[in-house]
Amino acid sequence: MAEAATKILEESLGKLVLLRLRGNRSLRGRLQGFDMHMNLVLEEADDISNPENIKQLGTIIVRGDNVVIISPSPR
Amino acid sequence: MAEAATKILEESLGKLVLLRLRGNRSLRGRLQGFDMHMNLVLEEADDISNPENIKQLGTIIVRGDNVVIISPSPR
Amino acid sequence: MAEAATKILEESLGKLVLLRLRGNRSLRGRLQGFDMHMNLVLEEADDISNPENIKQLGTIIVRGDNVVIISPSPR
Amino acid sequence: MAEAATKILEESLGKLVLLRLRGNRSLRGRLQGFDMHMNLVLEEADDISNPENIKQLGTIIVRGDNVVIISPSPR
Amino acid sequence: MAEAATKILEESLGKLVLLRLRGNRSLRGRLQGFDMHMNLVLEEADDISNPENIKQLGTIIVRGDNVVIISPSPR
Amino acid sequence: MAEAATKILEESLGKLVLLRLRGNRSLRGRLQGFDMHMNLVLEEADDISNPENIKQLGTIIVRGDNVVIISPSPR
Amino acid sequence: MAEAATKILEESLGKLVLLRLRGNRSLRGRLQGFDMHMNLVLEEADDISNPENIKQLGTIIVRGDNVVIISPSPR
Repeated sequence: MAEAATKILEESLGKLVLLRLRGNRSLRGRLQGFDMHMNLVLEEADDISNPENIKQLGTIIVRGDNVVIISPSPR
Repeated sequence: MAEAATKILEESLGKLVLLRLRGNRSLRGRLQGFDMHMNLVLEEADDISNPENIKQLGTIIVRGDNVVIISPSPR
Repeated sequence: MAEAATKILEESLGKLVLLRLRGNRSLRGRLQGFDMHMNLVLEEADDISNPENIKQLGTIIVRGDNVVIISPSPR
Repeated sequence: MAEAATKILEESLGKLVLLRLRGNRSLRGRLQGFDMHMNLVLEEADDISNPENIKQLGTIIVRGDNVVIISPSPR
Repeated sequence: MAEAATKILEESLGKLVLLRLRGNRSLRGRLQGFDMHMNLVLEEADDISNPENIKQLGTIIVRGDNVVIISPSPR
Repeated sequence: MAEAATKILEESLGKLVLLRLRGNRSLRGRLQGFDMHMNLVLEEADDISNPENIKQLGTIIVRGDNVVIISPSPR
Repeated sequence: MAEAATKILEESLGKLVLLRLRGNRSLRGRLQGFDMHMNLVLEEADDISNPENIKQLGTIIVRGDNVVIISPSPR
């Protein structure tokens, strides 16, 4: 993984991140862990694909090959 | 796999997990095993893709590359 | 492959298993062999995708990357 | 490849096999060779996807990652 | 690649081959080279996907993972 | 990665790049990092898929296997 | 990559090539670099998918796994 990507993910541990997955699914949650394949662990995750119907997911593991974009929360 | 992911899966052994697969399929079952590719074994699994028509699947093996999200049961 | 998955497949040798493949195809047959990629050999296999038009396939080899779920027959 | 799969393919050399490929294409032909990726060589192959319009293909090489199911001819 | 496949491709060097690619594209051309991933070089290639509108492509490189079937010209 | 590609990406560090992703998504942002898989880090990124509704994304990590084209800003 | 493919690409350096990508996108540009995964660098590239609306892209990096066909310019 790009060194710059690892740095961003490490700095985002314990903070909110936004994920855009394949198939137009969007998730938001607190980053608890990650690996080089961009497998991610989020806490207090929400499925925000439909802003009018946000679904609470709790703690989740996201398989990296579904990830398109990871946005760390603004600092 | 992210260390945090392995930890969550190990803690979830014998407990209910929720899976979201590609193609909008959702499964629920008791986690019996997993590997680093996120291949999973579930017991007493249900296909809950259609909440109005839940299908009992019994024990199943799920091939990891279909997995999008794994949610452990709330603790 | 997860140790739990290998154990289930070994115990299922010679017994009926149900496969769900990508593209909504479902197969049923007697498990004759498998490998770590979930390539499978089934005997007396049926294509049960359409329950009203079950097709006999005889002995088949299924390429693992099409597999979504393997259900062993209830014990 | 599963040992049982290799055995079936070896026993099928020179005999008719039926292939189901991704995208609902079906082929039939005499198996002349195969490898561990399920790349296959068929002789006197026919495209039987549309039973009312069978197309003769002659000798063909099929790239393994398109293969879903291989059925050897009944013995 | 299956030994039988390599043999067919070697014998087809300098001769016409027919390719069927994913997405229902068909090509025809003189085989100039190939590798183990089924990357191919064709000379005097035509896109024959639409028989009523054949397009001349000249020399082309085809990336192997788009290949479904290779048919050598009848001998 | 092609040496010419690495050179372009290194020269683009800190400058605007345009990305075209699978699924007709287009992004624009300042390149902060990259790796050999074309995983990218962009700062001040915008989703410009719909030119009439540009969305600010801030800093993002883009998973390389979604990338189709990278255009560095004109020099 | 097939030796014949490498030779063609080397001979095409600095010359126009035509690319057909997955999803019916066509590009044209001057080949500046390539690697064994068919990642390509083009200069003065145009998106010619719609011949009535050619878009200038300037210098671009194309990720190899989107490539279907590369046509060097006629010699």
